[in-house]
Amino acid sequence: MTTAAAEPGSPGPVRRARGEQTRQLILETALRLFRERGYAETTMRVIAKEAGVAVGNAYYYFDSKEHLIQGFYDRNQNEHRLATTALLADEKDFAARLRGVMHAGIDVNEPYHSFAATFFKTAAEPSSPLSPFSRESSPARDASIAIFRDVLEGSTAKLDPELRKELPELLWLGWMGVILFWVYDKSPGQRRTRRLIDGAVPLIDRLVSLSRLRVLRPALRQILTLIDSVRRDD
Amino acid sequence: MTTAAAEPGSPGPVRRARGEQTRQLILETALRLFRERGYAETTMRVIAKEAGVAVGNAYYYFDSKEHLIQGFYDRNQNEHRLATTALLADEKDFAARLRGVMHAGIDVNEPYHSFAATFFKTAAEPSSPLSPFSRESSPARDASIAIFRDVLEGSTAKLDPELRKELPELLWLGWMGVILFWVYDKSPGQRRTRRLIDGAVPLIDRLVSLSRLRVLRPALRQILTLIDSVRRDD
Repeated sequence: MTTAAAEPGSPGPVRRARGEQTRQLILETALRLFRERGYAETTMRVIAKEAGVAVGNAYYYFDSKEHLIQGFYDRNQNEHRLATTALLADEKDFAARLRGVMHAGIDVNEPYHSFAATFFKTAAEPSSPLSPFSRESSPARDASIAIFRDVLEGSTAKLDPELRKELPELLWLGWMGVILFWVYDKSPGQRRTRRLIDGAVPLIDRLVSLSRLRVLRPALRQILTLIDSVRRDD
Repeated sequence: MTTAAAEPGSPGPVRRARGEQTRQLILETALRLFRERGYAETTMRVIAKEAGVAVGNAYYYFDSKEHLIQGFYDRNQNEHRLATTALLADEKDFAARLRGVMHAGIDVNEPYHSFAATFFKTAAEPSSPLSPFSRESSPARDASIAIFRDVLEGSTAKLDPELRKELPELLWLGWMGVILFWVYDKSPGQRRTRRLIDGAVPLIDRLVSLSRLRVLRPALRQILTLIDSVRRDD
């Protein structure tokens, strides 16, 4: 079909753009079918057919349904990053940055709430490559932790230096807790999740400032030691 | 079969004992089959057959597979209570009570670790009646919260009076976090979970004592307000 003379592995820009378009088409079709028919019930064959591409072509872009979900995670991650770029460039207050990033994350995920509720049981299985803690999810996870690192590093927050090193990952863990709450949240428009964010952010902000108090030093050390000991994979 | 002349609804002690035995037999058979063949794949018909009872009889004791799991929760709850009775009667130190209760809870659940990992996806689905947060799970949940109330009330711990009211439920929530960690824990003998408990208990103990510090009063109020606002079901 294409007349580009590019070598395999170094496609020309036109072909690359078209490839990206096909990839997006397959991903969007898959997500629609997952929502409509359920994740377990939707096969790669059906996805290819609905997207109007050959099955082999679909497999060229995504090795399996799991890879489609990883593609979904990556895309959401990009959207989350884009939705917070302006805020993170302009705002210096830690709490305002954190609040903005969390609400933007919920905004980005909102269209997928009903899908998330049914899909959750697949991702939640401990051995699933789709778990947010899996090796396979590490690119999306690292990208998400990087946003929280930005929240902290671009802010004027003053805090204990050892806590500073750990905080981005702790914030990400807290964010996973918010996402878990959101998946379970049946209130209209998931407003309980919005309330959780609005209530948790000033609290986190306060605790971060308190980390410099001498009276809290032992408790803080204890928290950091606990994190370290639990993280050890043995 | 039985010659007891008891009215329906008020069986004699012999018949009640035999009923309890049959109930236990069905429950244990079901748990074994769930472990061996998986939860989704095991039908009530197969359970009845393996237990050597009529299908109608199995349904007499358990309306559905979900009820079997609720029966499993209730039984684990009882075992957890029994395993901690002596400790809670003798020990007065808050941290020692909490540590003992958490380790005993893991001991009781240990034989079901591999089952828990595969079963988790069913219980984790937000709409599932088997979720620990569901209305259907409230007897087992209330029994578990009662253990943590005992941990606190029978101890010599001194803490902020408002925190005292909320702490049993907070400890239970923390316990759900430990169970979640345990489900995911692939270390030999789940020793990471044991480490988590050993590290978290002194930390909780310290934070509980710190709750009386004036400098932390505003943060504590903020935590209690947040819990309250998030709990509101609207």
